[in-house]
Amino acid sequence: MADPLILQARPLTAAAFAPYGDVLETQGHSSEAMNQGWAERFRDIADIDVADQNGRVSISWVHSRADTAPVGLRLLERHPLGSQIFMPLNGHRFLVVVGPSGELPGRERLEAFVSNGRQGVNYRKGVWHHPMIALDAASDFIVIDRGGPGHNCDERSIPGGEVEVRL
Amino acid sequence: MADPLILQARPLTAAAFAPYGDVLETQGHSSEAMNQGWAERFRDIADIDVADQNGRVSISWVHSRADTAPVGLRLLERHPLGSQIFMPLNGHRFLVVVGPSGELPGRERLEAFVSNGRQGVNYRKGVWHHPMIALDAASDFIVIDRGGPGHNCDERSIPGGEVEVRL
Repeated sequence: MADPLILQARPLTAAAFAPYGDVLETQGHSSEAMNQGWAERFRDIADIDVADQNGRVSISWVHSRADTAPVGLRLLERHPLGSQIFMPLNGHRFLVVVGPSGELPGRERLEAFVSNGRQGVNYRKGVWHHPMIALDAASDFIVIDRGGPGHNCDERSIPGGEVEVRL
Repeated sequence: MADPLILQARPLTAAAFAPYGDVLETQGHSSEAMNQGWAERFRDIADIDVADQNGRVSISWVHSRADTAPVGLRLLERHPLGSQIFMPLNGHRFLVVVGPSGELPGRERLEAFVSNGRQGVNYRKGVWHHPMIALDAASDFIVIDRGGPGHNCDERSIPGGEVEVRL
């Protein structure tokens, strides 16, 4: 049994996450006034991509128990037919582990990011990722992804063995 | 100048809001296990309706200043081409004022609801509503509505004069 690979998590930023998808936050986006100046709106902060002929946008609520670091990871998944947004509702941090789309990446190609709890993520279609991991406390998320028929989840063991994520 | 009409706000519930759209919450929805039982997912908690030939789903972030009750209202708007979701991110209450779709409703036909801050709303296409009003503190919302060309916002004065909402 191979030793776990140690993966150090980094703060989530749009630049670092760009190869994998979008960070849902206001930073880096321009806004316009709405409601007679009472509010400001930052438009199109994520690219939804579910537009095959059978796809539709689906809204889910996910409630997750919290995990504690270090976190041991053994599997990856991807959604070949659509993007997937996780937006946190309680302000708690969560952990995002991703690898490039395409062929299943070895464990040394994974990256780990920590959302500050006011940032959501949008996994681009086909990007390998570990299931989202809530930190600090049980958390609720709005999930925006593809509904409709078709095989839209591949799940695999991480090639090379366990990965241990440190915060 | 007519006296304001006093409108008493009620707690937001799916049953009371049903004529106008969806309440985004877990209550009343069934869930399935995800992430090896670590999380539960409540699917399709809102009906997105933006599916004319030029429409697409758009994700925005809205930051709103807070208002204090009683709130004086003078205008209504509706989106003839699509539904519109407001999901709060900070857990603060907000005020939802709605009227039936179709002909512009008189002020005596309006209803007011208070979200507990863990409930979002989805206005059905064409439902008249006042711009969302944050209570208690400045608040952030994820907005999911229609992007694309076409006239998708009608704004009118409330027929009959001002409405004063009490919490």
